[in-house]
Amino acid sequence: MLMVPTFDADSRVKLTAAAAPREESRNAFEKEYGGTGYAAIEDLCADPSVEAIYIATPHQMHVDHVLAAARAGKHILVEKPLAISMEDADKMVAAVREAGVHMIVGPSHSFDPPVDLAAQLIESGEFGQLRMIQALNYTDFLYRPRRPEELRTEEGGGVLFSQAIHQIDVVRRLAGGMAKNIYAMTGAWDPKRPTEGAFTALMNFETGCIANLTYSGYAHFDSDIWMNDVGELGQRKQPGAYGGARRALMDLDPEEEARLKTTRTFGGGKTVDAKHNEHFGPVIALCDRADLKLTPDGIEVFGDTERSFIEAKFGPAPRRTVIDALVAAVREDEPPVQTGEWGLASLEVCHAILQSADTGQPVELQRQYRTKHREGTQ
Amino acid sequence: MLMVPTFDADSRVKLTAAAAPREESRNAFEKEYGGTGYAAIEDLCADPSVEAIYIATPHQMHVDHVLAAARAGKHILVEKPLAISMEDADKMVAAVREAGVHMIVGPSHSFDPPVDLAAQLIESGEFGQLRMIQALNYTDFLYRPRRPEELRTEEGGGVLFSQAIHQIDVVRRLAGGMAKNIYAMTGAWDPKRPTEGAFTALMNFETGCIANLTYSGYAHFDSDIWMNDVGELGQRKQPGAYGGARRALMDLDPEEEARLKTTRTFGGGKTVDAKHNEHFGPVIALCDRADLKLTPDGIEVFGDTERSFIEAKFGPAPRRTVIDALVAAVREDEPPVQTGEWGLASLEVCHAILQSADTGQPVELQRQYRTKHREGTQ
Repeated sequence: MLMVPTFDADSRVKLTAAAAPREESRNAFEKEYGGTGYAAIEDLCADPSVEAIYIATPHQMHVDHVLAAARAGKHILVEKPLAISMEDADKMVAAVREAGVHMIVGPSHSFDPPVDLAAQLIESGEFGQLRMIQALNYTDFLYRPRRPEELRTEEGGGVLFSQAIHQIDVVRRLAGGMAKNIYAMTGAWDPKRPTEGAFTALMNFETGCIANLTYSGYAHFDSDIWMNDVGELGQRKQPGAYGGARRALMDLDPEEEARLKTTRTFGGGKTVDAKHNEHFGPVIALCDRADLKLTPDGIEVFGDTERSFIEAKFGPAPRRTVIDALVAAVREDEPPVQTGEWGLASLEVCHAILQSADTGQPVELQRQYRTKHREGTQ
Repeated sequence: MLMVPTFDADSRVKLTAAAAPREESRNAFEKEYGGTGYAAIEDLCADPSVEAIYIATPHQMHVDHVLAAARAGKHILVEKPLAISMEDADKMVAAVREAGVHMIVGPSHSFDPPVDLAAQLIESGEFGQLRMIQALNYTDFLYRPRRPEELRTEEGGGVLFSQAIHQIDVVRRLAGGMAKNIYAMTGAWDPKRPTEGAFTALMNFETGCIANLTYSGYAHFDSDIWMNDVGELGQRKQPGAYGGARRALMDLDPEEEARLKTTRTFGGGKTVDAKHNEHFGPVIALCDRADLKLTPDGIEVFGDTERSFIEAKFGPAPRRTVIDALVAAVREDEPPVQTGEWGLASLEVCHAILQSADTGQPVELQRQYRTKHREGTQ
């Protein structure tokens, strides 16, 4: 819904080929872009006109597609989560390294301009040491149309691998990446959608920063009311839309629901009219001399005696920062912040949340990765 | 600041005597109420005109004053926290039981009408099972004028014993009282005020409900903006007041600061113009069929397909519910929800937060106490 407008609006990107199993999607692509629509990813990877491949397939297919792209020497932009299993993630990181290509794990909300701005402000030291981060998000995630496997945790369903991963990425980005341990509780409260729909977690970072992450996708309270009524994708929320996700699913069986989900792939015609930056719910970063509150338009600074606001520029196209990273990787050989190692570290935190909730004990993290351009600071 | 208007406005209460070390306070009391101002608590306890004593002395003095009142056969309303040490709390509970008097630990924010209403709604089962509670509060607590001991944790200073206790009381009230364990992190980030100014904690309840409690008293972000710009005491916040707490303390030495604090005792002339119920920051209670969001005026219900609002009546005087409990105890021999045992259970959670933050491990709770009028429900 947002990557198409992103590619369309950015002159640095040209869509020359695509692969998709649905013929309607391939035809729509060829008609719109004049490129080639392939049925098999291998054929896409063999196309010499392609420099980089954006992989937006279901989570469990990422590993095969990344391996195919890397072997063909293509740079990669792969949707979060990098993979479901750590083993797959390891394979992908190794394949990319061996091939000497760049892999960017994203887009995720750690690319949002306000997150980037907050990370820079924190890094600058202007507000003293970062002490705590509170991130929370209440959405309708669990009631958006799903394929059956998206409601099975072991196949990457539920809020952990699709939603927690954003919050973890954002928090790790602000705190410099090196989480030490995590303690968490999860909730799977709707027997009709029997995967995790909520979680709450406390993290410790190497720098001493602590973090509180909370998420509910149960489509009740909507925390966008605390984000100036701007939705996750930067769009203005419609006043009468409350309850829409649950209403749309009422009386649908799983097959009809999966069909509804299919209309959200390429050619479905749905795009979003974003006028603000994307966001992933309220985030507050507490530093010694100010709390920084992220909004869709920038950072509210709650200082010792005064409040101020620092704008985070929107546009010209949404997800400009993702294309910035892609162009830097492909044209200037500059690795992104969100490398494969970075994505693997965030994935480790997802698994640790499930493990901690299961055992009731904190989990030590072993595969964390420091944010590249924070080296030498702190 | 609020108990004086509470007593003044409620015809069921008559202030007949008081004890205070400061002569100005005693004189002001006698002048205003025509009763007797005693220098020693023992003399107040011996006054036969007194049926119940409200103890609002510094935390560490509660034990002596409760013991004196109980021995004299007076009913007791004692400010939270009941005590600092569990040993003192045990002594107080035993003394009250032996004397056959009632003790109410309060006021605390668990008396706020929206909390009471939410507890009733949850208990009714109308919205299904309670699954999670998120409570957060960002205030200027650490920068209000303090006596030196209020900045030493071991003497009950910092946000744990004065502020966490409110949040714990509120969350326990909503979840039925019986917490199982807690995991927490704390922050003491200002070397000039070297006690805990923030914490974040996850709790498990016997019912399966999980809870997330976060608090910062560092006077930066102010979460009252998420409570309709109504302050903790129900007063409308002043738009230009940001930063006032830190500004007022600038250039004061500890002695001047303690003097400033003294002006907030009886006779200081400061009362609050409350037009809404009191609150302790945003609280969201997630049930199967709705999220209940507490506001200063009631409960916002975020249901499956519709939003609604249920009013929690304000007034006629603030803290009516505290006097309700006092009158029921004194006149009808009816024990309050917030008994000594209840207050002791909340105090246990405060200590558990410190212990968990110190050890990095979850702490099992041993002294929890079920909310009285929830027996038989669940």
